[in-house]
Amino acid sequence: MELTIYLAGQIHDNWREDVKRKAKERDLPLNFVGPMENHDRSDDIGEEILGEQPNSIAKDDTASDFNNLRTHVLLGKSDIVIALFGEKYKQWNSAMDASTAIAMNKPLIIIRPQILHHPLKELSNKANVTVENVDQALRAIQYIYDSE
Amino acid sequence: MELTIYLAGQIHDNWREDVKRKAKERDLPLNFVGPMENHDRSDDIGEEILGEQPNSIAKDDTASDFNNLRTHVLLGKSDIVIALFGEKYKQWNSAMDASTAIAMNKPLIIIRPQILHHPLKELSNKANVTVENVDQALRAIQYIYDSE
Amino acid sequence: MELTIYLAGQIHDNWREDVKRKAKERDLPLNFVGPMENHDRSDDIGEEILGEQPNSIAKDDTASDFNNLRTHVLLGKSDIVIALFGEKYKQWNSAMDASTAIAMNKPLIIIRPQILHHPLKELSNKANVTVENVDQALRAIQYIYDSE
Amino acid sequence: MELTIYLAGQIHDNWREDVKRKAKERDLPLNFVGPMENHDRSDDIGEEILGEQPNSIAKDDTASDFNNLRTHVLLGKSDIVIALFGEKYKQWNSAMDASTAIAMNKPLIIIRPQILHHPLKELSNKANVTVENVDQALRAIQYIYDSE
Amino acid sequence: MELTIYLAGQIHDNWREDVKRKAKERDLPLNFVGPMENHDRSDDIGEEILGEQPNSIAKDDTASDFNNLRTHVLLGKSDIVIALFGEKYKQWNSAMDASTAIAMNKPLIIIRPQILHHPLKELSNKANVTVENVDQALRAIQYIYDSE
Amino acid sequence: MELTIYLAGQIHDNWREDVKRKAKERDLPLNFVGPMENHDRSDDIGEEILGEQPNSIAKDDTASDFNNLRTHVLLGKSDIVIALFGEKYKQWNSAMDASTAIAMNKPLIIIRPQILHHPLKELSNKANVTVENVDQALRAIQYIYDSE
Amino acid sequence: MELTIYLAGQIHDNWREDVKRKAKERDLPLNFVGPMENHDRSDDIGEEILGEQPNSIAKDDTASDFNNLRTHVLLGKSDIVIALFGEKYKQWNSAMDASTAIAMNKPLIIIRPQILHHPLKELSNKANVTVENVDQALRAIQYIYDSE
Amino acid sequence: MELTIYLAGQIHDNWREDVKRKAKERDLPLNFVGPMENHDRSDDIGEEILGEQPNSIAKDDTASDFNNLRTHVLLGKSDIVIALFGEKYKQWNSAMDASTAIAMNKPLIIIRPQILHHPLKELSNKANVTVENVDQALRAIQYIYDSE
Repeated sequence: MELTIYLAGQIHDNWREDVKRKAKERDLPLNFVGPMENHDRSDDIGEEILGEQPNSIAKDDTASDFNNLRTHVLLGKSDIVIALFGEKYKQWNSAMDASTAIAMNKPLIIIRPQILHHPLKELSNKANVTVENVDQALRAIQYIYDSE
Repeated sequence: MELTIYLAGQIHDNWREDVKRKAKERDLPLNFVGPMENHDRSDDIGEEILGEQPNSIAKDDTASDFNNLRTHVLLGKSDIVIALFGEKYKQWNSAMDASTAIAMNKPLIIIRPQILHHPLKELSNKANVTVENVDQALRAIQYIYDSE
Repeated sequence: MELTIYLAGQIHDNWREDVKRKAKERDLPLNFVGPMENHDRSDDIGEEILGEQPNSIAKDDTASDFNNLRTHVLLGKSDIVIALFGEKYKQWNSAMDASTAIAMNKPLIIIRPQILHHPLKELSNKANVTVENVDQALRAIQYIYDSE
Repeated sequence: MELTIYLAGQIHDNWREDVKRKAKERDLPLNFVGPMENHDRSDDIGEEILGEQPNSIAKDDTASDFNNLRTHVLLGKSDIVIALFGEKYKQWNSAMDASTAIAMNKPLIIIRPQILHHPLKELSNKANVTVENVDQALRAIQYIYDSE
Repeated sequence: MELTIYLAGQIHDNWREDVKRKAKERDLPLNFVGPMENHDRSDDIGEEILGEQPNSIAKDDTASDFNNLRTHVLLGKSDIVIALFGEKYKQWNSAMDASTAIAMNKPLIIIRPQILHHPLKELSNKANVTVENVDQALRAIQYIYDSE
Repeated sequence: MELTIYLAGQIHDNWREDVKRKAKERDLPLNFVGPMENHDRSDDIGEEILGEQPNSIAKDDTASDFNNLRTHVLLGKSDIVIALFGEKYKQWNSAMDASTAIAMNKPLIIIRPQILHHPLKELSNKANVTVENVDQALRAIQYIYDSE
Repeated sequence: MELTIYLAGQIHDNWREDVKRKAKERDLPLNFVGPMENHDRSDDIGEEILGEQPNSIAKDDTASDFNNLRTHVLLGKSDIVIALFGEKYKQWNSAMDASTAIAMNKPLIIIRPQILHHPLKELSNKANVTVENVDQALRAIQYIYDSE
Repeated sequence: MELTIYLAGQIHDNWREDVKRKAKERDLPLNFVGPMENHDRSDDIGEEILGEQPNSIAKDDTASDFNNLRTHVLLGKSDIVIALFGEKYKQWNSAMDASTAIAMNKPLIIIRPQILHHPLKELSNKANVTVENVDQALRAIQYIYDSE
């Protein structure tokens, strides 16, 4: 049984590559989808498609149209959502994607360093599981496939 | 990941062929579905199947039965809806299909010339993205597949 | 695009064979599912699996358990429901399956002789289309596939 | 706690008056709604509002529009549906309303003479309870209010 | 039983006053809601609240935010939607509101002059009833309350 | 038509192997999924992934996170749920999975010894069918595939 | 803001009176509903309404019809569900009602003695909160009303 | 028409009092609900009800149970959600509540200083309206009530 996993969260380091590599090492039959990981392109996609915008607010508005279209399609296709929270940045998109997964009744795994326990406590409470690193998240998924 | 795209909108020119050709040029793994594009057949389908009707109203009633059956099935099977609005015609079917997509939580791309911005503003506001031509719509879909 | 069609309605003649043969003649990519067509077995299935029942009411109760399980699974898997009403019998199962299809937002085609128009008028009004014979029903489905 | 009860079923005798009178005798806080009980008006309502129609089929079509509008509003407002089946008539509307109630997750009580057990067995199987007369239906509702 | 009616459609004449007056004459217990009927204010509401916008597109964008918020709240509260289509204007908002009502399973009455039958045929087909004037729409609602 | 069956219930004996073997003997095209059957691992999975917990309550809390994640994914993928109740143990997980299946409109087969009829009567009443052994459950599924 | 609370769980002692009395002491604006608390009547309600049944299984079957009708109506009307588990009895009805509440997205409070932690761990994990006594459950509800 | 407004967002200053006062000045018929605004009590509520916990993580876990119960009930009762984002703190709860509102199809107004435009762009894009201060949010709600 193949599962599609949406990898929500920050796009400032290469944690998604780590997930994919470790899933491969475990021979897990997973497909991964997620947001545009090229941060500049994600910010510029509105102007890339629609042309120059009058100001930075309009630029952001149009970029969010295309980013949300992508998330709408790919999150909708996924069986499980993994949302990673790091110590930097606001990461409201991560919280938005995680909450959308919960509201759509999609299983949700949160990865966060223990230090973020307090500000994430209500969101963690609604997730299926909260772990501290990529290995633990993959062991949680491995457990779904294990027969003993 | 193959996606099925419903092409809503006017059936008076061959814009759908343009979409399909350009999708092929981009090697996008898309299946396209949509309404009957033969306008006369679309108007006559009720009488074609059920026989002559007493007046033009009954003829239209029966035609709409079969056209709505087709849309019901194919829109239900689609992952994304593209709705194109042109400058002519009432195009209430296009607005109906676009609104149905929104209400069914299906991602929606509107294509319209900029001149139609004002009458379409509330519908555009509810769509994921609004663009001005077929190329931009396909670039929006290409962006869903791009990894960087 | 393959479609699965649930064939609701009386199990007293072989109209389903007629549908399947004519679909094949048209090369339509359809899978057909439906209720148990062996009437005796449909009536006896409760006792067949659970053993003799104390009276005819209990026998009917257990039979309906298994018949409804079958319908629950197969109607749930279908893309379109065709419900045929004939001139004989109560056919409340047909009305139940047709109404369930409507409530589940599944496209519904009703086949009935014109003489039944009056008692079926409210149900017909909620169906996508109402036709008078198997040929017309298949032409309605053919129309979904036609490109011109 | 007031409950609204939709009384689906035949409109050929005055069983609804019986229900209302007996509910009053029990001091049950119930509001009753249901279809138009004047059979002629129910058949003629299309022409009453839209004017003469070309033939009996068109007359029936328009009547069903208004009857279904009424049912749509009132069934939607109800907390429980009681559907009575008698020995005469096709009663496909009753089966339609009962099935719609089930599909909308509304509690359903079926009243039918025991002789109809066989043709109604699958529908009875999906209802909450099936009883044989109005008294039993009201005792079922009384039981919801009883504290001991 | 009070019902709330959303009056969708053009805001260029005073048809809503006509509806309200005639409902009062019939002593129907109806509450009416709908879009902002002051057309200029509807177009300017974005700038009224958020201040001057850089261009007419941004002005329209912000106006649609507030108009859609209003519709979202009030359509959500309504029991029945009446959508009136006139011979002028694009009226895509009316088609959007009517389609949203259908998708939300809210009963829908369309009012349109007979001349618009052809372009509205698919939308009419999905509405509960289609009538030609305000009187007929109110008679349809009256019929819901009539007991004989 | 392949169907996926979730096997809910106690993990204290090997009844699931019995189901799988008998399904194979009947050549039924079924995929089986279910909870972790290694009881110790099911109890320890929280500490296995997250490390030692401060007390037995915390250990149980974390274990249930991972067990519920597994059930969430696999029950969501299933077409039919079989829930087996035995004479020992509380089996609240079985009741939880069975009730979740009902609430998600998934077909449900309960297997229980006749002696448990009384305490299971309300849950049985909401299941599609209740049988007494694995053979009967598979005959119920066989019946879905039989054409006569 | 009045809230309606469904009190699921065993009907063998008077814990519901305890809840009601303590809610009154706190002046909480709560309405309480729940199952028939007279155990004998709950077991006999089928025969009370439908007359003597052929055997104990049929007696139980008919009783569960009426008990489930009651729960269907009253659980559907509730804003919060409290499910109490004691140390005796199977209490599968309690698990069924609690799971139904979760699946219907109704807030759920579980009351159970700490000793039941292990067998209830997966159900507790899906509840909003799990407490050990009636006082704590009411303090949880009090907290919803508190402004500081 | 009274509306209930859930005030999501930080509980570190008294912006909710500002909303309530200004709503009163405008004579808007609004009821306000929201999270516990006493920050210490919100952090301590788990231990307040369940007693001392072994460590700060367990303390947070239990607190989030009760905070989420409160939000579950009150957000579920609301007609509109206002979510305020300030420049300090992680505010993942605000993002969670805002996203839940969107997923539940509840109208959403975001208040944020313009400086937060970039990190909030995707969430703003899914909200109905985004404004910069309390006054503008109330003018948006006032507009729902205005008849001209």
